[in-house]
Amino acid sequence: MTKLWGGRFTADTDTLVHRFNASIGFDVRLHDEDIDGSIAWAEALAGANLLTPAERDTIIEGLARVRREFRDGKFSIQPGDEDIHSAVERRLTELVGAVGGKLHTGRSRNDQIATDFRLWVMRACDRLDAHLTDLQKSLLDSAAGALNLPMPGYTHLQHAQPVTWGHWLLAHFWPLARDRERVAAVRWASAVLPLGAGALAGTAFPINREQLAARLGFHSVTPNSLDAVSNRDFAAEFLFAAALLGVHLSRLSEQLILFSSAEFGFVSLSDAYSTGSSIMPQKKNPDTLELTRGKSGRLIGHLTGFLATLKGLPSSYDKDLQEDKEPVFDAFDTLDVALPVMAGLIRSLTLRPERMAAQLEAGLLATEVADYLVRQGAPFREAHHIVGLAVRQGEEKGLALTELTPEDWQAISPLIGKDVAGVLTVPAALAARAVSGGTAPAALEAQLTLARQTMGR
Amino acid sequence: MTKLWGGRFTADTDTLVHRFNASIGFDVRLHDEDIDGSIAWAEALAGANLLTPAERDTIIEGLARVRREFRDGKFSIQPGDEDIHSAVERRLTELVGAVGGKLHTGRSRNDQIATDFRLWVMRACDRLDAHLTDLQKSLLDSAAGALNLPMPGYTHLQHAQPVTWGHWLLAHFWPLARDRERVAAVRWASAVLPLGAGALAGTAFPINREQLAARLGFHSVTPNSLDAVSNRDFAAEFLFAAALLGVHLSRLSEQLILFSSAEFGFVSLSDAYSTGSSIMPQKKNPDTLELTRGKSGRLIGHLTGFLATLKGLPSSYDKDLQEDKEPVFDAFDTLDVALPVMAGLIRSLTLRPERMAAQLEAGLLATEVADYLVRQGAPFREAHHIVGLAVRQGEEKGLALTELTPEDWQAISPLIGKDVAGVLTVPAALAARAVSGGTAPAALEAQLTLARQTMGR
Amino acid sequence: MTKLWGGRFTADTDTLVHRFNASIGFDVRLHDEDIDGSIAWAEALAGANLLTPAERDTIIEGLARVRREFRDGKFSIQPGDEDIHSAVERRLTELVGAVGGKLHTGRSRNDQIATDFRLWVMRACDRLDAHLTDLQKSLLDSAAGALNLPMPGYTHLQHAQPVTWGHWLLAHFWPLARDRERVAAVRWASAVLPLGAGALAGTAFPINREQLAARLGFHSVTPNSLDAVSNRDFAAEFLFAAALLGVHLSRLSEQLILFSSAEFGFVSLSDAYSTGSSIMPQKKNPDTLELTRGKSGRLIGHLTGFLATLKGLPSSYDKDLQEDKEPVFDAFDTLDVALPVMAGLIRSLTLRPERMAAQLEAGLLATEVADYLVRQGAPFREAHHIVGLAVRQGEEKGLALTELTPEDWQAISPLIGKDVAGVLTVPAALAARAVSGGTAPAALEAQLTLARQTMGR
Amino acid sequence: MTKLWGGRFTADTDTLVHRFNASIGFDVRLHDEDIDGSIAWAEALAGANLLTPAERDTIIEGLARVRREFRDGKFSIQPGDEDIHSAVERRLTELVGAVGGKLHTGRSRNDQIATDFRLWVMRACDRLDAHLTDLQKSLLDSAAGALNLPMPGYTHLQHAQPVTWGHWLLAHFWPLARDRERVAAVRWASAVLPLGAGALAGTAFPINREQLAARLGFHSVTPNSLDAVSNRDFAAEFLFAAALLGVHLSRLSEQLILFSSAEFGFVSLSDAYSTGSSIMPQKKNPDTLELTRGKSGRLIGHLTGFLATLKGLPSSYDKDLQEDKEPVFDAFDTLDVALPVMAGLIRSLTLRPERMAAQLEAGLLATEVADYLVRQGAPFREAHHIVGLAVRQGEEKGLALTELTPEDWQAISPLIGKDVAGVLTVPAALAARAVSGGTAPAALEAQLTLARQTMGR
Repeated sequence: MTKLWGGRFTADTDTLVHRFNASIGFDVRLHDEDIDGSIAWAEALAGANLLTPAERDTIIEGLARVRREFRDGKFSIQPGDEDIHSAVERRLTELVGAVGGKLHTGRSRNDQIATDFRLWVMRACDRLDAHLTDLQKSLLDSAAGALNLPMPGYTHLQHAQPVTWGHWLLAHFWPLARDRERVAAVRWASAVLPLGAGALAGTAFPINREQLAARLGFHSVTPNSLDAVSNRDFAAEFLFAAALLGVHLSRLSEQLILFSSAEFGFVSLSDAYSTGSSIMPQKKNPDTLELTRGKSGRLIGHLTGFLATLKGLPSSYDKDLQEDKEPVFDAFDTLDVALPVMAGLIRSLTLRPERMAAQLEAGLLATEVADYLVRQGAPFREAHHIVGLAVRQGEEKGLALTELTPEDWQAISPLIGKDVAGVLTVPAALAARAVSGGTAPAALEAQLTLARQTMGR
Repeated sequence: MTKLWGGRFTADTDTLVHRFNASIGFDVRLHDEDIDGSIAWAEALAGANLLTPAERDTIIEGLARVRREFRDGKFSIQPGDEDIHSAVERRLTELVGAVGGKLHTGRSRNDQIATDFRLWVMRACDRLDAHLTDLQKSLLDSAAGALNLPMPGYTHLQHAQPVTWGHWLLAHFWPLARDRERVAAVRWASAVLPLGAGALAGTAFPINREQLAARLGFHSVTPNSLDAVSNRDFAAEFLFAAALLGVHLSRLSEQLILFSSAEFGFVSLSDAYSTGSSIMPQKKNPDTLELTRGKSGRLIGHLTGFLATLKGLPSSYDKDLQEDKEPVFDAFDTLDVALPVMAGLIRSLTLRPERMAAQLEAGLLATEVADYLVRQGAPFREAHHIVGLAVRQGEEKGLALTELTPEDWQAISPLIGKDVAGVLTVPAALAARAVSGGTAPAALEAQLTLARQTMGR
Repeated sequence: MTKLWGGRFTADTDTLVHRFNASIGFDVRLHDEDIDGSIAWAEALAGANLLTPAERDTIIEGLARVRREFRDGKFSIQPGDEDIHSAVERRLTELVGAVGGKLHTGRSRNDQIATDFRLWVMRACDRLDAHLTDLQKSLLDSAAGALNLPMPGYTHLQHAQPVTWGHWLLAHFWPLARDRERVAAVRWASAVLPLGAGALAGTAFPINREQLAARLGFHSVTPNSLDAVSNRDFAAEFLFAAALLGVHLSRLSEQLILFSSAEFGFVSLSDAYSTGSSIMPQKKNPDTLELTRGKSGRLIGHLTGFLATLKGLPSSYDKDLQEDKEPVFDAFDTLDVALPVMAGLIRSLTLRPERMAAQLEAGLLATEVADYLVRQGAPFREAHHIVGLAVRQGEEKGLALTELTPEDWQAISPLIGKDVAGVLTVPAALAARAVSGGTAPAALEAQLTLARQTMGR
Repeated sequence: MTKLWGGRFTADTDTLVHRFNASIGFDVRLHDEDIDGSIAWAEALAGANLLTPAERDTIIEGLARVRREFRDGKFSIQPGDEDIHSAVERRLTELVGAVGGKLHTGRSRNDQIATDFRLWVMRACDRLDAHLTDLQKSLLDSAAGALNLPMPGYTHLQHAQPVTWGHWLLAHFWPLARDRERVAAVRWASAVLPLGAGALAGTAFPINREQLAARLGFHSVTPNSLDAVSNRDFAAEFLFAAALLGVHLSRLSEQLILFSSAEFGFVSLSDAYSTGSSIMPQKKNPDTLELTRGKSGRLIGHLTGFLATLKGLPSSYDKDLQEDKEPVFDAFDTLDVALPVMAGLIRSLTLRPERMAAQLEAGLLATEVADYLVRQGAPFREAHHIVGLAVRQGEEKGLALTELTPEDWQAISPLIGKDVAGVLTVPAALAARAVSGGTAPAALEAQLTLARQTMGR
């Protein structure tokens, strides 16, 4: 095995050690970014008169051939290829000869890998944003289609106040809007070019780093070479954004699992998004939702593990940093499937309004009576207490709040007139919450419009 | 014990259950934010004609009295006070009578606690930013004072290339600049007003939420009431920003611990920032640095634990969310001491240039010869190999690179002339890295200027 | 402030640094263990002729007085007391004079704190075991009282096969049995005495460590002094045992929250274990269960954070290890309330058999037909397929499996005779699972007996 | 695609959903365990007269052929193979015909996967134990070879007291002994047979579970079928044992990285366990140690993520549990390389006694003077203070403790005679710590003997 660094060594690397150290098994995935970076670097070297125009062109054409070999599945990784950089340079030199050995002038794998990886994260952010947008669309469409469909609203998983399907589903739209902002922030934080930082102290050749940054799509250059090779904040931020997005998907999944149980029955998953049992023939299981919920644990683990790895390192480059890529790749891959699966599941969901209606019992309207009393002038604290007693009396008599007679109400409080019946309906309760973000039809319409506007950015 | 919600209940809460449920032990810390929110709410209720101007004023004056009692340490928490909201309302009603019971009109503890907590986080971010700025200043001052003082640069904790004290220390300045950006983003994410969301479905009274937001310093209002009471993204973001900041402090600490060991000896901590041993009289221990390093583990734990808590909840409010405050408070408290302690430690640090100089051995200059060869036209890959052989030959003969004669060099490669001696010095190596972010004096000066500029924002 | 280690220092500790370093705020909790350890150490010193019998007695009596001051709430912590060891020794010396200064002979705070903390963990394990036992008893009693009460069994939260309340509840008994084994293993791992290890290299005085261990209730002594002061495996094990126990409590809570929802309604929590809403008068919330579920996230965080702190330290004592106590204390305190609260909640739970019965629909019996077919000689794979078709046909016709006629069955498969009705009942399905660990009455009885036996150890 | 459960479904699974759900990509690794379990199950079915002897033999021979196909790399996974169970059963049926469809009688994938996975973990524990034993041997050999070689001992990374190489290295032996105990406990916890639990309620056929357990090497059977399919404690325990083992490897690595730095220089890694730099020809980097340290973060992440996944599930089987295998596999694979690499690294390590000796400065002996004073009758607290002053005076005069004259000492304390020189040597300091676990030659010899004894179990 020919190493990039063998000159001073007298003994070969132990085979198991080579396997332990080698990152080619996973960083091969960076081949496009590595080649993009190398092409830009060749141009920068030529700009600094370290390559002749002809040498530059030879190298760039060679790199283009290497890229084609990857695309065509013809690139063959050799036993001595430690990482993607070694592999590309080795193949380049095979294709173009000794001039290939000039490419590594003035750069180190330390600044090179940081550049490749940042470029990859930038692209991954773009893809996540597209997935998030599509999932948001699926939520918007379902919400718009049943914007005012009443269903019980819960706190503590207990019946609380009526809401609507549209309102409930939009409550899962906004977390994704925040996720998109986080993903955009990760992309921006990643788009700072480390190339030119060399191993740790800066390159000794007159490279125009700002030009290099612009060519590769970075918005600026790293201001300190030591920090440049050491900084993995962008990877930690990516993992955090992924973990919090995972939490949001988990919360949506949890609720849809509940809603698709026999006991709730508010929704029915399409067969295409369900699976069966190997033993119980009647089963239709929400496996995709459960996996999404379960995988959000994995995303938390990736974040935690990587922070633990970063913590306690000194500054500068240490090999521990090689542990940055696998969690980021796996987090991306997880979401790259989970997000479109969720969008498809939402699109193929069947609502069961009759099951929702069956749960719209009178307890959900208790707050309406308290609010009614407030409008009659009672302090809320007293109003709350009065209705609490009404609930208890009702329970003892086996009567729902809506079944109490005007006389019952008068006995409970002289402030309660016959018109209380007017507030004791689900539509009235929904309409009463006309404040922005509330359940009244106009407020829901406004929310939907706002949601659509945020998609346009 | 008088509960806010006792009406429908027939049996008392179990004592241990009360202790388990009560959050007053830690959320008492939110008293200022709770009172701020309640004053603004009283004004909003008056704006909606739910309070007369006189009632509003009575309530506001009562709340001001409650605040004074807190400030003077005279507020007495009662056994029935479940949380800060109950405690404040209970005391308010004691002070102003039944009108106090009107304050809770149209709001719920669900939107109230979210508001209090967001307000607290906004203020905590301001304080962290001030601490971060001060720590950055301490780094800038120390860096400016020894900008060009040479010391060994490390990768893999092995001697790599020369850097300077200023360069090395500024490598810890930039992570803090990123931390400040994250903290600012957390503040922005927190400054969205949930008040008016009620329990989950929106308030049933015509509250002007936008006005309320402006009055309390929030930049906008939550667009969905369910999401408003359920959303703890801002707390997770705070914990992440704290954890990553902790990692940065840990990395700085780790390196200063190494540098203050007998073997490195590059710096000496002031007595005021060191401690001794109960058994070994000669010891001077970097306890503050070790604690800072250790506490960054705690910060990772808070983030992890809270994400695990959030994951798997359905949307809407569940009591699990009460677990949001203790990790955030503890993360803040940890950094509220660790940051100024680190700034003080940096300011009182003594540099030991002679110990740094003693480690500036010739191996640090090996790259210079390779770069020299490149300038003579050798492909870098070949140049690297040649110098590797020179290093090995030197080791075998017991000679440093700087001790090789011109004849030795000629024998190693005919491309190496007498002028190689000119690159084989530490000042030459530093000066060669003139690229932005590099170690050359002008580049360092530019970096320092840039760093100062970022402080001015 | 008088420090234990001030001799070589010329400057005072910075005030904020003192606050940062001091552990007295939380390790005061170890006062009993510290005094126990010191009494034993005084005896050991006397055994090695380093104290006269009179000095030993003076010191032991002094320590007993210090202990009484703690018990009576009269111990006053002074500003200079860094930690519990300093505080106790300072007070001892105030009480008995200069002879108190002999107590620290031959030991270090490094081996002392490790001893104190291990002793505390041993006692904490005993208490957790008692709590676990009591919770197990509450589960056993409830299970025994409704051992054969049928209810739906779930997988993927979908109706699967019938189980019984007793069976379901015992499924939460066994994880606690495993928790008790883990807690016992933690206790054993903790009961190895570090005292005598000194600061890191062993004490220089002829202390009989084995005798000391026996006196303090440890089963052996640490075999290597460096490892003795550095080893916190027992704390990590405690945190892991707590985290996994937390997961078990969370899973039980999650299910009881579901079961107490309006939609399931299988159980009703007692008022004493529920709370109300500040705004919705009808609410009865399972706060204690939600908090228990939420707090299990905190326990995971403590484990994670501490492992991150430990990782990356070299061996021997570093101040980072001071971060071991707060997570362990908080994990214990959390469980010290959560466990008895859960036991009380279980004891006061009301079952609602009619709601369970209402969910015992025919789909739960589909497997019975497949098993019937197997007994008729059909390969299971084919049987499963046949019943799947029957389920689908039933759904299309709006008929449950139990509503199909013998003719329908014959049309589906000639292997299905009239006697299929005999397997299509819940009691038959329960009784069929007579294997150990199954739902048949005798199997349940045997399981209950086994569970009771494990309690007797 | 033919599913095991297609009967009741009318629509096909979405392709992306199939990919999301399928576990064959990783659980193919369980093929041996799956086949072992199926062979035993076929025997159990025959024992219950559900298979004829001929059917049993056909199935077992078929399974043996499937195993050979796996071993020979000829097994071809088909698009419809969701998991290893489906794949094996599908292939079996292809090979032996419809009788293959009888194998799944009375079992579910829920009890089957739990059985396969436990079996795999049991074997993984055996392998880890072998690796741990070998690493312990490498440590023992190196320790035995330089048992009394003096080197500085550190606390807080500051010079503390002299220790020896053997002592220091054995401090890393004992944590591995504890790891082995944990691994053994995990194996025991895993060896409880879930097979026979069916989907959740127990199998409906008269299977002799105890016989089945014995045949497969389990020590007992699960006592509750619901818990049997739901319990993943053993996986969490495996991940914890791996994480704590990783922490131990990280601590050893951290210290060897320090010791192989230019500044310490106590050890030199063999070329076979080091790597070079792509840019700096002189570098020899301890990559393997850094990776080992870094990967311990990954192990913490796997544990955390899995606990977060488990938390919040109800009991019984949910698809989230499918997330158990990847972290366990990766944790095992990480250690399966890291452990032998570390053993090889230790075996090829070169000690540099002259560099250790160069750091044995007089400060390390300060405790000796304090202990000397104690032997003269001074209370330790006073002795500590006296030596602290001596250290400070020495520092001011530029004299080491060993350079003070008898007159200097007398001036410091009249208790200090000429014979103090006798304690102020490294050999004297080592020899003084004759307590068990200490640094005296006989104590080290005893420790080595004890260590060897623990290996024999």
